[in-house]
Amino acid sequence: MSRVWNFSAGPAALPLSVLERAQRELLDWNGSGASVMEQSHRGKRFIAMAQQVEANLRELMDIPDDYAVLFEQGGATQHFAQIPMNLAVEGDSADYIITGHWSEKAASEAAPYVRVNVAATSKSESYLRMSARETWKLDPNASYVHIATNETIHGVQFKQPPDVGNVPLVADMSSDILSGPVDVRRYGLIYAGAQKNIGPSGLVLIIIRRDLLERPTRPMAKIFRYVEHAAHDSMLNTPNTWGWYLAGLTFEWLKDNGGLAAMAELNRQKSELLYSTIDGSGGFYANPIDPPVRSRMNVPFTLHDSALDAAFLQESEAAGLLALKGHKALGGMRASLYNAVPLQAVQVLVDFMHDFARRHG
Amino acid sequence: MSRVWNFSAGPAALPLSVLERAQRELLDWNGSGASVMEQSHRGKRFIAMAQQVEANLRELMDIPDDYAVLFEQGGATQHFAQIPMNLAVEGDSADYIITGHWSEKAASEAAPYVRVNVAATSKSESYLRMSARETWKLDPNASYVHIATNETIHGVQFKQPPDVGNVPLVADMSSDILSGPVDVRRYGLIYAGAQKNIGPSGLVLIIIRRDLLERPTRPMAKIFRYVEHAAHDSMLNTPNTWGWYLAGLTFEWLKDNGGLAAMAELNRQKSELLYSTIDGSGGFYANPIDPPVRSRMNVPFTLHDSALDAAFLQESEAAGLLALKGHKALGGMRASLYNAVPLQAVQVLVDFMHDFARRHG
Repeated sequence: MSRVWNFSAGPAALPLSVLERAQRELLDWNGSGASVMEQSHRGKRFIAMAQQVEANLRELMDIPDDYAVLFEQGGATQHFAQIPMNLAVEGDSADYIITGHWSEKAASEAAPYVRVNVAATSKSESYLRMSARETWKLDPNASYVHIATNETIHGVQFKQPPDVGNVPLVADMSSDILSGPVDVRRYGLIYAGAQKNIGPSGLVLIIIRRDLLERPTRPMAKIFRYVEHAAHDSMLNTPNTWGWYLAGLTFEWLKDNGGLAAMAELNRQKSELLYSTIDGSGGFYANPIDPPVRSRMNVPFTLHDSALDAAFLQESEAAGLLALKGHKALGGMRASLYNAVPLQAVQVLVDFMHDFARRHG
Repeated sequence: MSRVWNFSAGPAALPLSVLERAQRELLDWNGSGASVMEQSHRGKRFIAMAQQVEANLRELMDIPDDYAVLFEQGGATQHFAQIPMNLAVEGDSADYIITGHWSEKAASEAAPYVRVNVAATSKSESYLRMSARETWKLDPNASYVHIATNETIHGVQFKQPPDVGNVPLVADMSSDILSGPVDVRRYGLIYAGAQKNIGPSGLVLIIIRRDLLERPTRPMAKIFRYVEHAAHDSMLNTPNTWGWYLAGLTFEWLKDNGGLAAMAELNRQKSELLYSTIDGSGGFYANPIDPPVRSRMNVPFTLHDSALDAAFLQESEAAGLLALKGHKALGGMRASLYNAVPLQAVQVLVDFMHDFARRHG
């Protein structure tokens, strides 16, 4: 077996030691004589594990007790809709800050459930920079303010949460959760699809301030109500048990590797190595994004001559560098540098990039 | 490692050879140098696999081309709500046949989206029998008729689909899909949570006649619309890739083991062995369900003296028989005999039951 360096935007690389442990335990988990996938979620063994997973996440992210943690399904996309279903009623409005593809999509899926006010958008600048906070047209009566802390496709990232006053800040952190410390108290609701920094796809993490669970809602099925999921410890119905388990292995791996402060430092090093290679390539490679908002997780870049794209992809794959093809919306390349991508992988990548530029420059 | 005999109602036993293959491939799937969990769902390798999985399911179940097959999330419970959201508009009604806990729950979650007409219910008989078809009060103008083909908790099962005329028949098959051949053409929509006969939890299979995708709906987010999922081959957003992969391994296992006709025969043998043991125990064990509607998948039973329950559970677990505790709604015991539970497991169970009765009789 030869493992490659995996730069997939998601579903993305998982820590090797997490995969190895899942492999060891696959047929006989926790002395049960059955796989973790074959356990009733209502059994003692699974419940004990689930509680420990939540406790480890609370420790890693320093989540206060007045926040509930939910392990849900449907991808972040479903929660683009479910969030306004839970936080707003007919006639309410919410402020959306549009910084790229995903925040735009969040607003579009919310529109059937809340009056969407685009309080700021950098679309006219091709999302290469972020609108300054002073220019945002926030409504003090909004149900919430929505941001995507990191745009997986456009490669821009909030390095700090914006100040939005007393209106709850709702953040899609799918592609940068756990990549560094976050002050959870600054947010009303944090949500994230698992398939970047948490575990396999099919799991969504939701961290919600408990007072927001009590908001009145329109009539809807129980299964869409966060307050019901919280009351049933995310076991209102059968959860994604494998995803929950894998997330737990990742949280243990994070704890064993210095927690989120260590991740932040590592992600800073990885992204700086790649950005400096791009910026120092004399124009062979380019990333046109305003440096202060460049993402530490997803680095889109282009080659000076797109006729070289095919060769770059073919040669990089042959060199054991997987999934560098950019999103079709932007073309070019993209390297995703999530927690499970080690510094060594980025070193191999930039070595390849230097070599490729020399041969094709 | 010693594997136990697993009678869990779900998440349930998976075929051992499926688990062994998943274990072998966990770090390096399909020559990619990465886990199947680490693959982009939009990559060539994953898409080729996903298409093959669907093709194998179509072959196993003989699904006609005018039905779409969707690989979704949220559990059957979410689709209790999503089905009326997709098949009915404000003011429409739908007929529900209540045969136990799950069909009752389906009706309750549907109620915010469609006028629920309980066309038949056996609740007053504690769900021990099913209302005769002639007594159902069907509405020829209903949007659809809903049944649960098998009630996981109450242990009753439709052995044949009921005739409901031209109104589309919608069936929750979560706990008996793939347990035997089904004439898909008799149904408008079939859905099933994966965690019994398909794969791990967190995946829902939906088989829907394509004309039903075209029904007008109320305004709602795209992510809730089956027609959008069908148009995007279940990749409207990131699917549960691990669940899809495991389902595929299960479908291959089914093909290698004689398909659904062979499963039907095996499930008949397994359930008859257990029911005959219960019925022949001279009252030590009892299953009070009307024999023609007894489930071949989930067999609830009681001991003549519930004071023996704790000993039965303790001794059975010590004998390597997992998860025989009944659902709290009924008490007593329950043995789930899904496809992955071999005849040998049921033989070990009935041997244990004979022995237990002798020692405690």
